[in-house]
Amino acid sequence: MQPQSPLAALRSLLKERELDGMLIPRADAHQSEYSAPFDDKLAFISGFDGSAGLALILADRALLFVDGRYQVQARQQVKLDEFDIHHLHDEPVHLWLRDNLPSGRRIAFEPMLMVNSQYESLRTSGCDLVAVNDDPLNEIWTTRPAAPRGAIRPMPIAVSGESTASKCSRVAKALDHAGADYLAVTLPDNIAWLLNVRGSDIPMSPVPLSFALVSAEGGVEWFVDEEKLRQLDSSLLESVSIQRPEAFIARCQQLAAGKRFLLDEDNAPVAVRFAVEQGGGAIKWQADPITLMKANKNDAELEGYRACHVQDGAAWVNFLAWLSHEVPLREAAGNPLSELEAQEKQLALRKACDNFREQSFGTISAAAANAAMCHYHSTPETNVAITSNEFYLNDSGGQYSNGTTDATRTLNFGQVDAQRRLHYTAVLKGFLSLISLQFPQGTQGHQLDAFARRPLWELGLDYDHGTGHGVGHCLLIHENPHRMAKKVNPWPMQPGNILTIEPGYYLAGSHGIRIENQVEVVASQPGFCQFASLTLIPIDLSAVELSLLSEQEIAWLDEYHQRVRETLSPHVASEARPWLIEATAPVRTQRA
Amino acid sequence: MQPQSPLAALRSLLKERELDGMLIPRADAHQSEYSAPFDDKLAFISGFDGSAGLALILADRALLFVDGRYQVQARQQVKLDEFDIHHLHDEPVHLWLRDNLPSGRRIAFEPMLMVNSQYESLRTSGCDLVAVNDDPLNEIWTTRPAAPRGAIRPMPIAVSGESTASKCSRVAKALDHAGADYLAVTLPDNIAWLLNVRGSDIPMSPVPLSFALVSAEGGVEWFVDEEKLRQLDSSLLESVSIQRPEAFIARCQQLAAGKRFLLDEDNAPVAVRFAVEQGGGAIKWQADPITLMKANKNDAELEGYRACHVQDGAAWVNFLAWLSHEVPLREAAGNPLSELEAQEKQLALRKACDNFREQSFGTISAAAANAAMCHYHSTPETNVAITSNEFYLNDSGGQYSNGTTDATRTLNFGQVDAQRRLHYTAVLKGFLSLISLQFPQGTQGHQLDAFARRPLWELGLDYDHGTGHGVGHCLLIHENPHRMAKKVNPWPMQPGNILTIEPGYYLAGSHGIRIENQVEVVASQPGFCQFASLTLIPIDLSAVELSLLSEQEIAWLDEYHQRVRETLSPHVASEARPWLIEATAPVRTQRA
Repeated sequence: MQPQSPLAALRSLLKERELDGMLIPRADAHQSEYSAPFDDKLAFISGFDGSAGLALILADRALLFVDGRYQVQARQQVKLDEFDIHHLHDEPVHLWLRDNLPSGRRIAFEPMLMVNSQYESLRTSGCDLVAVNDDPLNEIWTTRPAAPRGAIRPMPIAVSGESTASKCSRVAKALDHAGADYLAVTLPDNIAWLLNVRGSDIPMSPVPLSFALVSAEGGVEWFVDEEKLRQLDSSLLESVSIQRPEAFIARCQQLAAGKRFLLDEDNAPVAVRFAVEQGGGAIKWQADPITLMKANKNDAELEGYRACHVQDGAAWVNFLAWLSHEVPLREAAGNPLSELEAQEKQLALRKACDNFREQSFGTISAAAANAAMCHYHSTPETNVAITSNEFYLNDSGGQYSNGTTDATRTLNFGQVDAQRRLHYTAVLKGFLSLISLQFPQGTQGHQLDAFARRPLWELGLDYDHGTGHGVGHCLLIHENPHRMAKKVNPWPMQPGNILTIEPGYYLAGSHGIRIENQVEVVASQPGFCQFASLTLIPIDLSAVELSLLSEQEIAWLDEYHQRVRETLSPHVASEARPWLIEATAPVRTQRA
Repeated sequence: MQPQSPLAALRSLLKERELDGMLIPRADAHQSEYSAPFDDKLAFISGFDGSAGLALILADRALLFVDGRYQVQARQQVKLDEFDIHHLHDEPVHLWLRDNLPSGRRIAFEPMLMVNSQYESLRTSGCDLVAVNDDPLNEIWTTRPAAPRGAIRPMPIAVSGESTASKCSRVAKALDHAGADYLAVTLPDNIAWLLNVRGSDIPMSPVPLSFALVSAEGGVEWFVDEEKLRQLDSSLLESVSIQRPEAFIARCQQLAAGKRFLLDEDNAPVAVRFAVEQGGGAIKWQADPITLMKANKNDAELEGYRACHVQDGAAWVNFLAWLSHEVPLREAAGNPLSELEAQEKQLALRKACDNFREQSFGTISAAAANAAMCHYHSTPETNVAITSNEFYLNDSGGQYSNGTTDATRTLNFGQVDAQRRLHYTAVLKGFLSLISLQFPQGTQGHQLDAFARRPLWELGLDYDHGTGHGVGHCLLIHENPHRMAKKVNPWPMQPGNILTIEPGYYLAGSHGIRIENQVEVVASQPGFCQFASLTLIPIDLSAVELSLLSEQEIAWLDEYHQRVRETLSPHVASEARPWLIEATAPVRTQRA
C-alpha cells in the first residue's frame, strides 16, 4: 500500500472530525519572520516554503494564498493539480470563503497560529470557525523535525545596559498607565530583551521561543522549556517563575477572572484572547509596550553597536581588498571567482573577529542578473561568476556578542557600462540624501522615505522595497516598530533608534544595485535629529558619475571615508591597508 | 428688566426641557469651513468666532473646546468668568464628559451638526445623548441673521466640461460598485459639481447650501430653497426632483426600508444615519465618491484654471509693479503705504479682469511681524506700514468665471537683514525642491511634504502648517481630498489634480515668509507625474542668497520667469511692463 500524501492524510483527518476544511498559515505561535522547521506546516502540506502564505484545505480542493513576491515561486513548488494559487492581499481568504462557500461550513484553524486581526477578518466570512488546539497535523506529519530546544544564554548587564528588574518595573508602570493587570508577551525578542537572555532555537535569530506574563506589580512568569535553561545562572531563574510553554494558555485563563490583559492585536495568538475571555477577563488591545522600549537603545547597547561595527568593518575591508585582487586575477586566468566562493571567504574573515557569533541573516552574494532578485541566495545551481563587466552585490552581517550588523555594498571591478553607472549614481545620491538629513525629532519613517528615491524618480525609476528597517541589539535583523518605507509607519523616530538606509535599483535579467548603511538616530540641534553611520565600509565610487555629485555630497563622502580609514586602519590586515587607503581617498583626488 | 444673556437663556431652555446640558459645535449641516452668520451658534453663545470649536453648556458651568490655533483668541473673545477653555484635541469633550459627569446625564446635541465619527466618540462618554431636531437656539437667538438665500447660477458645460447626466451616471456606477442604493450628498461643493451649478450663500465660497440624494439608477432629488433657483434654466430643473431642504431627513427615512445608503462618516450629519436606521435601511460608510471624481479635473476645467491664472497673474504684476514704485516713494515721503491700502489696490486691479467674480478667500496683506500670524487679516486696528526693512506677505486669489486662484508672494523692498534673507532663501529652496519633483503616479501627499521642509530643517527650523491643499474649480479654496502635509493623506495623486505648494517660515513678533504657487499634476514619463505651475507671478529674488542656489534651482527659476514674462507681457498694463521684465530677468544676470 502506498503511503498517503500529506494532503490526503489531512483530508481523512478532517472527515473524521467532521470538518469541512482547515486553514494552515505559514506562522508559528510568535509570528516569527524566520521560524523553525518544526513549525513549517505550510511547507509540509503544500511544498511551498516562502516566508508568508496560507493554505485552505477543503475536501475537494485546496488553495494556496501567497503575496506578490511569491506568485512565481509558489507555482514552481506546489503541485498545480492539487493547489490553486491565489493572491494573499488582492483576494484575501476571508472574502474567498464568503464568496465561494455556503455559510456555516466548519473551517478549522489553530488559534495559536492566528492573531486577532486575522481572526476578526475571518469572522466576516460566514463560516463556522472551529478552533483546534491539539496540533492536529502532528498526527499525520510522521517526518516532522523535532521542536527546537536551543540553549539560552545570559546577556551580561555590561552589554544590555539595564537590569531585568529595572525593565520589569518600567513594564509594570506601562501596564498601570494602560489600566491593565497583565501583559502577555508572545514575541520572543521582547522576552529576550526583558529577561536579558538570548536564545538559539533558530539560526541567525538569537531569540528564545517562549512566552511570558508580566503583572502590573512587575512579576514575571516565563513559559519556557527547562531544557533550554542550563546555561542560565540562578539569580535570573529565582527572580521569575518558570513554567512549561504548554501551560501558557491555561495559565492566562486561570488568572483572567476580573483582570484586564494587554494584548497586541497584530502579534498575540488569538488563543490568548479566547483564554482571557473564557476565564472572565477583559482585553486592552495595544502594542506591546516592550516593543518601543526595546527600540530606544540605551548607552551600553549603542556602545556595543559601535564597537561591533568596527570589527565588522575591518572584516569587510579584508574581504573587499581580497576581492579587488582576486576578481581580476581569476577572470584573467579564465577561472573567475564565484558568488559562493566569495561568501565563504567573507564568512571565514568574519569568523576571525573576536566577538563574532554567527551571521545575522543569510548572506546575499549576487553577481550580474542574480542581484536583480532582492532576496537572492546563491546555491550551487544558481552560482555565477563575479566579473569586471557586471556589478557584484553583497548584503551581509554578523551577530556579535555586543551588537548586530547589516550592510550592503555593490562593487564594480572596472568595466560596467554607462547605464549601470547612471543607475549606481542615482542609488548613491538617494542614499546620501537620506543619510545626510537633519529632521525634527518625532518624524515618522514614511515622511523621509522619498528622499532616498528622488534621484531614481528623476530617471523615471524606483525600487519595490522599503528604504530602512530597525535592527535588534543581538536580536532580530528586522526589528519592529520603526521602518522607513512608502507605507505609513506611525512610530516617531528619536535618538537611540537603530535603522538601516538601503535604497536600491533592480533591472530584472540585468543587474541589481543596493547601498546600505546601518545608522543610529542622534540628537543634533534642539528638537532635531540626524543619522550617524554605524557601518564603516568604503563605498565604491568607481561606478559613480562624479560630475553628477554636488559639493555637499562629495563633502559627506570624503568625511565618511576619512572616518572609515582612521577608525579601521588599526584593525585591518596589513595586506588590506593599501586598498583601504585607496578606497577611502577624497573624491577630489579621484576627480583630478 | 434686563434681557437675559444668551447663556442664561439657553440654561432656562435646558431646564424647561429637563436637559442637563447641550453641545454647540462650530458647524453647519454641511461641515463648511466658512459658514453663514445664520449658522454661527457657537459665536452667539460664547463670543468665540474661530473656524473650529465646540461649547458644552451645563447648568452650573460652561466649557469651550478649541484647538491649538485658537487658545489665545478664545481667551480674548469669551467671558472667562463664564467659560473654561479646554483643548479640543488634547482633552476631547467625550473624555471630559466621561471623567467629570456622573453617567446618564442628559446631554442634548443637534444631529444635523454632528457627524458620525464625532457621535461615536460621544457615545463612549457615558452620557445619555439626546438628539434635538427643532433648532432650539432659534427660540432664544432674537437677533439671528436670516438664513442665506443666495441665487444659484448655472455653470456652462463649456466651463464644467461634463454634463450632469454624465456625472450622475458615473455616480450611479459607483453606487452599484459599492452595493448601495442611495448616496446622500451633504457637501455643497459636491452638489455644485454634480449639478453644474454655483451658489452664493457664503461670500467667496460659491456653493449652494443644499442636500441631494442620488439613486443607483442615477436619479437626483435636490433639497434646496426654491427662492435660490430663479437663475436656473428649465432643463436642469426638469431633470431633477426639487424639494425643500427641510424635507431631506424625512425623505431619507421614507426611502430607507430595505435599502442601503452610502454615507460619508466624516461629513454626513449623523441625522441621516438616524433617519436611515429608523426607516429600516442599512448604511455603507464610505467617502462620497463625488469627492474624488471632482478632484480629478477634466480638460475643460484645466483649461479654465490655466486661462484665469493668466488674468490673475497680470493683475498681480500690475499690483507688484505699483507696490515697487509706491512703497519707497511713500516711505521717503514719511507716509508709508499700509497693509489695507495695498489690499484695496490689489482688489481694484483684480476687479478690472474680465472674468473676475470675487475674491476666493479673505486676502492676507501682512507686513513685518503681522506676517508671522499665518491667518492674519488686516483691520484698522492692526494695520501697519509696508516698509523697505521688513517683508510684506500677500496671500490672495480670485474666483473667476472659469477657475479659481490662490497664490502667495513675500516681498522685499530692499533692506531686509541677513537673518531674514537666510530664512527667505530656505523657504524658496523648499518651494523649488517640491515644485520641481518628478514622482510616481499614485504617490500620496504625506510622502512628498518633507521636500518642502528640508532646507528649513537644515537650519533647525520648520513651519506649523500643511504644505499644500486642493483648490476647487470655481468652488472651495480648500478642496478635499488631496493634501500635502505631515499628516497622512491616503489619496493617491494623479494627473488632473490641483494643489498648492506653499512652504513658509514664521518667527513670532518678527517676520513671516511664504511662497505659494498653485499647480496641476501632469503626466511625465510612463508611470510618473510632475507639477506644472498654474500660478504665473514673478518670485522676488532680491532677498535670496543666490550663492546658496544650485544650478538646477537657478535653471528652474529662469525657465519659470521666462514663461511668466512671455505669457503675461501682452496682458499687463504698459507701465508695469518694465517691472515685469526686470523681475523675470535670468538669475545669472542678477548674480553678475
